[in-house]
Amino acid sequence: MKEMSEELDAPIRSYIGDEKPSNLIEASRQYPYAGGKRMRPSMVVAACGAVGGDKKKAVPLAVAIEYIHNFTLIHDDLMDGDEMRRGMVTSHVKYGMQTAILAGDALFAKAFDIISELDVPDDVLRKIMKVVTVAVWDLARGQQMDVNNENGEAVTMEEYIETIRLKTSVLFAAGAAGGAMVGGASDAVVKAVHEYAMSLGVAFQMFDDILGIIGDPKKTGKSAGNDIRKGKSTVMVCHALKNIKDDKDMKTFRSVLGKIDATEDEIAKARDILKKTGSIDYAIEMAEKYTKDAIAKLDCLEPSEDKEFMVALAEYAMARDV
Amino acid sequence: MKEMSEELDAPIRSYIGDEKPSNLIEASRQYPYAGGKRMRPSMVVAACGAVGGDKKKAVPLAVAIEYIHNFTLIHDDLMDGDEMRRGMVTSHVKYGMQTAILAGDALFAKAFDIISELDVPDDVLRKIMKVVTVAVWDLARGQQMDVNNENGEAVTMEEYIETIRLKTSVLFAAGAAGGAMVGGASDAVVKAVHEYAMSLGVAFQMFDDILGIIGDPKKTGKSAGNDIRKGKSTVMVCHALKNIKDDKDMKTFRSVLGKIDATEDEIAKARDILKKTGSIDYAIEMAEKYTKDAIAKLDCLEPSEDKEFMVALAEYAMARDV
Repeated sequence: MKEMSEELDAPIRSYIGDEKPSNLIEASRQYPYAGGKRMRPSMVVAACGAVGGDKKKAVPLAVAIEYIHNFTLIHDDLMDGDEMRRGMVTSHVKYGMQTAILAGDALFAKAFDIISELDVPDDVLRKIMKVVTVAVWDLARGQQMDVNNENGEAVTMEEYIETIRLKTSVLFAAGAAGGAMVGGASDAVVKAVHEYAMSLGVAFQMFDDILGIIGDPKKTGKSAGNDIRKGKSTVMVCHALKNIKDDKDMKTFRSVLGKIDATEDEIAKARDILKKTGSIDYAIEMAEKYTKDAIAKLDCLEPSEDKEFMVALAEYAMARDV
Repeated sequence: MKEMSEELDAPIRSYIGDEKPSNLIEASRQYPYAGGKRMRPSMVVAACGAVGGDKKKAVPLAVAIEYIHNFTLIHDDLMDGDEMRRGMVTSHVKYGMQTAILAGDALFAKAFDIISELDVPDDVLRKIMKVVTVAVWDLARGQQMDVNNENGEAVTMEEYIETIRLKTSVLFAAGAAGGAMVGGASDAVVKAVHEYAMSLGVAFQMFDDILGIIGDPKKTGKSAGNDIRKGKSTVMVCHALKNIKDDKDMKTFRSVLGKIDATEDEIAKARDILKKTGSIDYAIEMAEKYTKDAIAKLDCLEPSEDKEFMVALAEYAMARDV
């Protein structure tokens, strides 16, 4: 995965030319050029290879998907008021609110510009465009649901899973399906690859939520417990609100959930209640189930290194500390 | 033009379905559903008709261009901190900053989703996509230049015209060229129509700037003089800074330019100096020149009602009080 990520670095850094004004160009480059896991673009290229396609042809689409991901991160950081990401100062803090909004918009436009030049038959281009545009529309819906959910109100497990399908899975899935389309896959194979990535995305986001509770802040770069402070209705929280038996525990848990200035001590108490209630184990089990579902979807593909990589990506969704 | 605008209202109101979450859907609909001059979508449809195409086929592209325009307005209002537009409360004031950002992003995605379904040959779709994506990229650059220019520093006339070409003309031009492509126009005709709309856009924006100084705030809905308070380097300001003869006038003018809390009285003084220096007349002359250039580009088109409409649109850019 590290190898694939490094191979993608050069193309990702090659599509934003030296135009004016320089502050917008610099801000547009900041997130995509900074590196990262490159999971989404890796998946685009691997999906193309796994269906027997020419992987080089999928690289521009991989770049476009990464730009779209980064555009949403820039806007998300501004919306959440986050000041740090991956050890760097966030866009709106570094360049100001106005430039951060425009840098996100510009990356979005650049992504579709790159897609318009893909080396695929024109009818395939139309299909790729459709799956990517619907993904971005859904992404905005998922992010809005996330915003709406951050008010400490309990949502149902189903609502929460729908939220993470929209805010995380759809872009993974558009990338994987797009990569398979570039590779010339049949509609049935494209559908299977899309479903693989949808499930993988859910597992990935659930495990992200788990890391947000039990992860090492030094590794994740996120303060543990911030989701609790924000009152976010993760799978763990949904489970706990239904399953905490002790009234005192329920009272304590509810008092910390959504308390934006909760102390580390209060967070630790909430975490202990989640553990005791089995909510963290429950979330891990669910994430494992989605990972298995994802991998099962790949049965229709012939064995190959790229298929193995896709399996490994799904396993990685759960086997990481960052 | 009113007729065309009314005909476009129904399609513009038909593309955003009742999905969840309802607050994002409502926010996405607010600007495009509120009406307005509908200049851009009218131009898309007229350009299709003027090259002999089937205008019905251009309607979805017209809607997409209007959504893109509205997405930029939502983000622009947030960036500028404007609280009112067309007599309604702006998006970020009504729905909050987070939802305003997402509503803009969602409209952008929806626009490209609509484009992906255009009833045109696949190779034409690719060309339309290219001209529209480049326009949105350029738009972001133009808006950033505008932000950069709002610091009271004088920019040259050339820089200012480049800014308004990017922030206003490119989307007009993408719409007009796209409409002509839907209509099956040759590359040469598409180019002419594109140039028509580029010039029209410059005239339109220059006249907007002029209305910002001498317009009736009750009609324009904008406080007269706000551009001066913001220190915006319009054509008038560029001209004045080069041509004010009287030292006292220059001192007065410079003291008001960029003074965010300038009184009505101070604005009136600055306006008088602009008039005396001939800066407003100069801007009107320039806008007239661009209007003429725009109309001249249409020589390659056969006479038709739609061509007449395009000529009238160019004339309207200068003959309006709102």
